[in-house]
Amino acid sequence: MSMWFADPSLAIDWPKGAAEVGHPVVKVRGAGAFEAEDRLAVEEPLEIRLGGTSFSVTMRTPGHDEELVAGLLFSEGIIQSADNLDVLARYRDPDTSPDLGNVMNVLLKGDVTVARERLRRNLVTSSSCGVCGKVTIDSLTAACPPIVSEATVSAEFFGRIASAMESAQPTFEKTGGLHAAGLFDLAGRLLVLREDIGRHNAVDKVIGHMLLARRFPLDRHALMVSGRASFEILQKAWTARIPMVAAVSAPSSMAVQMALAADMTLIGFLRPGRFNIYSGAGRVRLGAEDLG
Amino acid sequence: MSMWFADPSLAIDWPKGAAEVGHPVVKVRGAGAFEAEDRLAVEEPLEIRLGGTSFSVTMRTPGHDEELVAGLLFSEGIIQSADNLDVLARYRDPDTSPDLGNVMNVLLKGDVTVARERLRRNLVTSSSCGVCGKVTIDSLTAACPPIVSEATVSAEFFGRIASAMESAQPTFEKTGGLHAAGLFDLAGRLLVLREDIGRHNAVDKVIGHMLLARRFPLDRHALMVSGRASFEILQKAWTARIPMVAAVSAPSSMAVQMALAADMTLIGFLRPGRFNIYSGAGRVRLGAEDLG
Repeated sequence: MSMWFADPSLAIDWPKGAAEVGHPVVKVRGAGAFEAEDRLAVEEPLEIRLGGTSFSVTMRTPGHDEELVAGLLFSEGIIQSADNLDVLARYRDPDTSPDLGNVMNVLLKGDVTVARERLRRNLVTSSSCGVCGKVTIDSLTAACPPIVSEATVSAEFFGRIASAMESAQPTFEKTGGLHAAGLFDLAGRLLVLREDIGRHNAVDKVIGHMLLARRFPLDRHALMVSGRASFEILQKAWTARIPMVAAVSAPSSMAVQMALAADMTLIGFLRPGRFNIYSGAGRVRLGAEDLG
Repeated sequence: MSMWFADPSLAIDWPKGAAEVGHPVVKVRGAGAFEAEDRLAVEEPLEIRLGGTSFSVTMRTPGHDEELVAGLLFSEGIIQSADNLDVLARYRDPDTSPDLGNVMNVLLKGDVTVARERLRRNLVTSSSCGVCGKVTIDSLTAACPPIVSEATVSAEFFGRIASAMESAQPTFEKTGGLHAAGLFDLAGRLLVLREDIGRHNAVDKVIGHMLLARRFPLDRHALMVSGRASFEILQKAWTARIPMVAAVSAPSSMAVQMALAADMTLIGFLRPGRFNIYSGAGRVRLGAEDLG
């Protein structure tokens, strides 16, 4: 996965094609803390090419990629049965696909035509997918420099913002169907909370609120999301230069990689009295004896 | 929301722009069942136009749409500050936008140029977003006829498949970070289970598996997903003509609308001994006295 980051020191030597990988974390438990290995669900882009032309890029967990491509082409109405698939194979040209594991090439046969316009339209996935306007997998790495922020918080800070989020989520309680994102200052005050069926939308609304209210910069703030922390959440926080992101559930492998590249503090599994630090632990003030 | 369905009898008279709506459901609790109103989180498409040209379509919960647009354009690198926004307003032309609530138009100012190529590339969101290759909001409705399937199951069926899913999710246990999708036959046998960081991918893998194994049709099968049931899950099941979809968590408003339009059975909040039926209750055999 080192290809995603220009700085090789940020590369993580994870096995290729795995569905889960190990990553060292700091586990904060009450007043204590210790280092341990956590397992991360792998999130990696997969580029689908039709006859060599890029059709779409989607974030996925590696494994059963042939099935994913077949199912996606079927759902999209490109193929009607397995008979329409002539070749469905991993791309083998290192010149045009340095990461051979993440590109699948498809040759169609039978009564199948994909309009040129359709191919062009599908060239890029939308902003709401996480691939965010990049034409190819190679350009995924954000062109942002790492975040510089002297902000630090206590371990108790995260428990406080988690409580504040929970008590401020009106629609979720009634529907059980919404993600929430909240922005906090370093005193743990909730500045804005938004709910949406898409977690990326909730984050966009929070950042959009601060932008429209001309309350940038956000370099002394923390973003909290109600569910999992995916690549796209970290990318949005990075772009807005928010140094700390906390999630109630698990981060993905790419979220951790992006947080490392951006020098962001990433907190996962934030529950009362406990959480895991996946990167940027230096911004969390822990007792000196905790990690001894 | 009636515009999404050709058959006006399928229209649901929900208030425009609401974040949550009411919907009648059948609540199955142990051996009993009763009708009640459930609250649904609203999922609706929002089209963003830059200077009148379609930039992207994203599924979102209505509310704070200006913030969503501002945040999304910022995350995408289109704008750098609120100063780049000249106009940010709901579209007012009923000829080109019959659903005035779901289109936002933006005029940019200052040192901002959006390449024509970029606009064309962003015209359509990807398959993984749920808008699935449609150019405009108006074309969202799938061109599929409703599903005809005589399949019925007992209420206990859903408890059995929920247990089977839970015991068959190896990676989730270790990472807490994956969605799962499983396909079951009418006897409750798990035919294939796939895990992925994206719930749509897990469903694509399941359908792709059956397609590649030439095990279509799937009209006597049930699809189960580990998390919420969104519009895109129902769309994929509809395309594969799977008559029953069950989710551990909440369905969105558009998932319910799509299930009604497709005559699919949609189950939500599937837990041991209890679940809610959002549509197609006729396929679930309940005691005759239950709904008296």
